[in-house]
Amino acid sequence: MSGFRHVVMFTWAEGTTTSQQEEVRTRLAELPAVIPEIGSLSLGADAGVNPGNFDFVVVGDFADRDAYLVYRDHPAHRAVIDGYITPILDRRAAVQYEP
Amino acid sequence: MSGFRHVVMFTWAEGTTTSQQEEVRTRLAELPAVIPEIGSLSLGADAGVNPGNFDFVVVGDFADRDAYLVYRDHPAHRAVIDGYITPILDRRAAVQYEP
Repeated sequence: MSGFRHVVMFTWAEGTTTSQQEEVRTRLAELPAVIPEIGSLSLGADAGVNPGNFDFVVVGDFADRDAYLVYRDHPAHRAVIDGYITPILDRRAAVQYEP
Repeated sequence: MSGFRHVVMFTWAEGTTTSQQEEVRTRLAELPAVIPEIGSLSLGADAGVNPGNFDFVVVGDFADRDAYLVYRDHPAHRAVIDGYITPILDRRAAVQYEP
């Protein structure tokens, strides 16, 4: 597979609500319609199979690194981060790579 | 997309060598040939675009949760974890989800 993949995981802070967590998913799911550089955006809450996991993951596929950077810095994406993710964020883990 | 996806990231401990890190990739890449339940296994070292990232990511796609569990507990997989990952591991972050 070619392209460029962005993977990020979050844990949510104590005391945040399911509604707040679902809002992150809803807002991120709206981004492909407004950022055409997104090839695909796969979103998922942890299935609860293993203890100690993070809570939520985003796997974004892009044509290349430049397309990822457009997504990373896009105002619509930053608005989701600032408005919905950062307020409930505990830990974050990310990797970008060429699959 | 249906199925079941396993995503895990690692940071490597200070003092580990590039050779040790590349060995993890080599050993994981051998697993699809010996564990037929693996649908696909995408491996990647961080591209270095963003500071503070983890060092390595594994994205595994499986037909369903049971297929993932076969992989998780397979002796060939555990041998890679015990012999190559754990000895150089600093931090680990994982999510399993239904894409």
